[in-house]
This record gives sequence, structure tokens and C-alpha cells, in this order.
Amino acid sequence: MPELSLNLATVRKQWNLREAVAGAARHGYAGVAPWRDMVQEATPAEAARVFHDSGLRVTGYCRGGLFPAADAAGRHAAIDDNKRMIDEAAAIGAECIVIIGGGLPKGSRDLPAARKMFADGLAAVLPHARAAKIPLALEPMHPMYAADRGCITTLAEMTDFCDALGDGLGIAIDTYHVWWDPNLAREIARAGKRIISHHICDWLVPTRHLLTDRGMMGDGVIDFRAIRAMIEAAGYTGIQEVEIFSEDWWARPGDEVLRVAMERFRAVCQV
Amino acid sequence: MPELSLNLATVRKQWNLREAVAGAARHGYAGVAPWRDMVQEATPAEAARVFHDSGLRVTGYCRGGLFPAADAAGRHAAIDDNKRMIDEAAAIGAECIVIIGGGLPKGSRDLPAARKMFADGLAAVLPHARAAKIPLALEPMHPMYAADRGCITTLAEMTDFCDALGDGLGIAIDTYHVWWDPNLAREIARAGKRIISHHICDWLVPTRHLLTDRGMMGDGVIDFRAIRAMIEAAGYTGIQEVEIFSEDWWARPGDEVLRVAMERFRAVCQV
Repeated sequence: MPELSLNLATVRKQWNLREAVAGAARHGYAGVAPWRDMVQEATPAEAARVFHDSGLRVTGYCRGGLFPAADAAGRHAAIDDNKRMIDEAAAIGAECIVIIGGGLPKGSRDLPAARKMFADGLAAVLPHARAAKIPLALEPMHPMYAADRGCITTLAEMTDFCDALGDGLGIAIDTYHVWWDPNLAREIARAGKRIISHHICDWLVPTRHLLTDRGMMGDGVIDFRAIRAMIEAAGYTGIQEVEIFSEDWWARPGDEVLRVAMERFRAVCQV
Repeated sequence: MPELSLNLATVRKQWNLREAVAGAARHGYAGVAPWRDMVQEATPAEAARVFHDSGLRVTGYCRGGLFPAADAAGRHAAIDDNKRMIDEAAAIGAECIVIIGGGLPKGSRDLPAARKMFADGLAAVLPHARAAKIPLALEPMHPMYAADRGCITTLAEMTDFCDALGDGLGIAIDTYHVWWDPNLAREIARAGKRIISHHICDWLVPTRHLLTDRGMMGDGVIDFRAIRAMIEAAGYTGIQEVEIFSEDWWARPGDEVLRVAMERFRAVCQV
């Protein structure tokens, strides 16, 4: 039976950590992926207990990276914060940390410089991640977030980092971020066994807000089955993770969201 | 003196065709680029007279392409419509037609198929464009429009069409659509002398609407000078064209928009 994990941001406005984990277990999810704010609110020790008692996997911890900053102090702070996050990930039993590029430093228009800061930060935290045995899952973000969240926008760039830095890095593929890529098939094949995380979320037409109008699988235009087939052919046949930021779905009862997501996962997301 | 053209969509809510052309002339613009609805509202013959009497260049006609359709009849209709548009472009003295990919046909989730329809449509209209001596300026669109407007999202893909189909095609680079591209420098260099159109518009942070919250140059995060330097190094030193879809700027007096755009062009858009 193919397995689904629940990224807890999907129900972050309905439930706290304990409620969301209980909901995931109730609806037959095999894992959860918490965000840092929810873990910190519960305290990492308490979060670790909740996850352990649930019997669910912790498929990812969201989210690190975000290395670009306006000055050296800011960049050092980002590196230190990522190291703390790695320790937290180990404490809660997370299988990986999701890493995104980060945006332009305030006042900057230099995207290549931001990308260089990402590369430098990633190299700086990697030894700590290796020592903690927490893989860093590099997630390219949709180009519409290049300015303020994710200066690394393509799977090709993230796989380049895996090629360059090696052990301890992996790839997270979120359908929402990569579905438009004309090189998607080629780059998923190249990423190959580096793929360690597969997130699902649909692209709605029209999309009314850049951040909070993501779609439930089946409601938009993404061909989940085709992308999953590429990912399985590349060598990743593991769990999928539903992650939807949506004012619409945040306004519905958590149980409804989890029920529909599981139905859609079974209906449209498997090869 | 570097020259600026006014894409008339920038003031489409303030002025009709005649008013917009008069405004462009009054503010020292060297050209205008009309959209088809404005030309058809005025009639192409009248529009041709207005442009001719103004002494301004007609730097582009917006916009053709959009070849994907749900059935063969729809695809034939799109090809016929592009041929009519080529004739109109010749009638109004336009220097090129701006060509975009078009979105997914209704009900489709097959982006590769849409791209194939674009390629087929482009090949079908190219002989007509060559005969009319109207270059087709291929404009990649930002990936956030892949579903509903522009299935061709990268400069690399558009230059591939130039490589494959040759004479009669060129490249239109709009900073808004391409600024995020990690391969931008490489692909501008590869496009080289195929570049025949350079549009300017800024990316705002935050961007509040996918279509109508584009920015005045200098108000966002795009490094216009750096991109212009790449374009000039590639061999295009011609006119730039300001094109801003913005509820904010549409709400201001047309003369203010044209004055500010010209100031910003002089301040931040030249090497």
C-alpha cells in the first residue's frame, strides 16, 4: 500500500502539533512532517514524545537553508541556526531537513550573490549534518519565490550541489515547485537515488495568491501520476508527503482536509 | 541617447490608442507597442494612420502565438488567427510580433503536449511571417504563467526554436519573465543576435497578484543594468520597451506613468 505523510503546515491553522499528529494517525497517514514553529511551541522534547507515541514516521523537518543575509554576521547566524535545527531534527527523529535557498538580502538585487551565499552556507553546515546523520533534502522552489524565499529555483541547480558536495545531501521534489520545468524528466533522472523526499500539491488555475492559494491534488493542472512515474524510475519509491498552503483548506475542518487529501492521493498520485 | 518605447498596455486603462500614442510622443518616447485589442478597436487602418502621423516606431505588436488548443479545429483557428495578425502587423508597420506559448488546453494536464502544439503552430505560421517580412519575437514567460498563458518558460527553449526553424524568428527578452533564470547570462549570450526586443518591468516584493502587480523599474529587485549589459554584449543595442501591468499604475494619470517610466529608464536601465 503506497504511503502518505502529512506536512503539518497543511492544517496549521486548525490544529496544534499534538492534534495534527493525532489527526494524521486517525486518517491512516504513515508519517508527519512538522515545521519548526510548531515543534518549538510544543518544545522539541514534547514533540519527540508525541511523534514517538504516535508510531508515525517523521518524514522531514521544515525548513532550513535560507543562508543569504546582508552581512557576515547575518550569514553566520543563519549557519548557526541551521546547526541548531539539525540537532532538533535528531532530537525529534526526523528523517531529513528540508532546505530551501532563501531570498535576496534586504536591499540587494544580486541574485547570483545570493546563490553563492546559499552554496557557502550549505557547505558550512554539511559536516554538522553528516555527524548528526540528518540528511539535508535540497528543495528547489518555484521561480516566483526567487526574490523572497528560494533563490535556487531549479532541480538542476540542487542536483549540482549534490554532485559537488556529495554525501549527506539529498533532493526534495515538490510537484508545486517543479511541475513547469521543461527539463523535469531529464533532471529527475539525473537526481536519481539522491531523491529522498517527494511532496505533492497542485497548481490551481487561476492562482489568486503567490503563497496561500495552493491546490489539493486533482483540483489543478499538475499531472501527479506522470511525475511520480519519473521519480520511481529514478529510484525513489518511498513515501509521498502532502503539503498544501491554502486559505481555502485552512478554513475547513482538519478532518475534512485529511480525508480529502488521502482520497486524492489514492485517486490521482500513484503510478 | 538610448531610446525607450511604450508598450501601450502600460496605460490601457487611462487612454485609448490615439491618446496613448500622443502621450508617448509628448514624453519623448521613440516608439510604441500596441496590443491587438486597441488596434482593432481603432481599426487597423486608423491605427496605421495614428502611428504614421506620430513619427514613432511601432516596436512590436502584442501578441501572437498561443497555439495550444483542445482539438484540431482550435489549433487551426489559432494558426489562422496568427496569420491575420501578421497581416495586421504589416498594415500598421510593426517591427515584429511578440509570440508567447499559450497555456494548457482546457482540461489538459499535459504540458509537454502543449509545448508540442506551440512548436507545430509556430512552424505553420512561419512561412506567412517570412513572406510578410514580419519577424516573430519569441518571448519566454515566467513559469508562474505556464498553466494559463505561456507554456514556454525559458529563454533556452525559445532559442532552441530559433536554432531549429531559423530565419524569421527572433527573441524577445522581458526582464520580468527571465530575471530568475540561473542560466540567464549563458542563454542571453547564446541567443546573441537573435535578440530583437528587450522589455523592461520590475519584480515587486511582495508581489500581490500574479498578473497585475508588476513593478516600475527601480521599485523591485531586478538588476536592469546587469541584464542590459548581457543583452548588449550579446549584440542587441537597440530600443528598450517598458511594459507594466499594474493596478497601481493604471490608477494614476497617464502622464505621470510616462514621466516616471522615462525617468526610471534613464536612472536604472542603462549600462
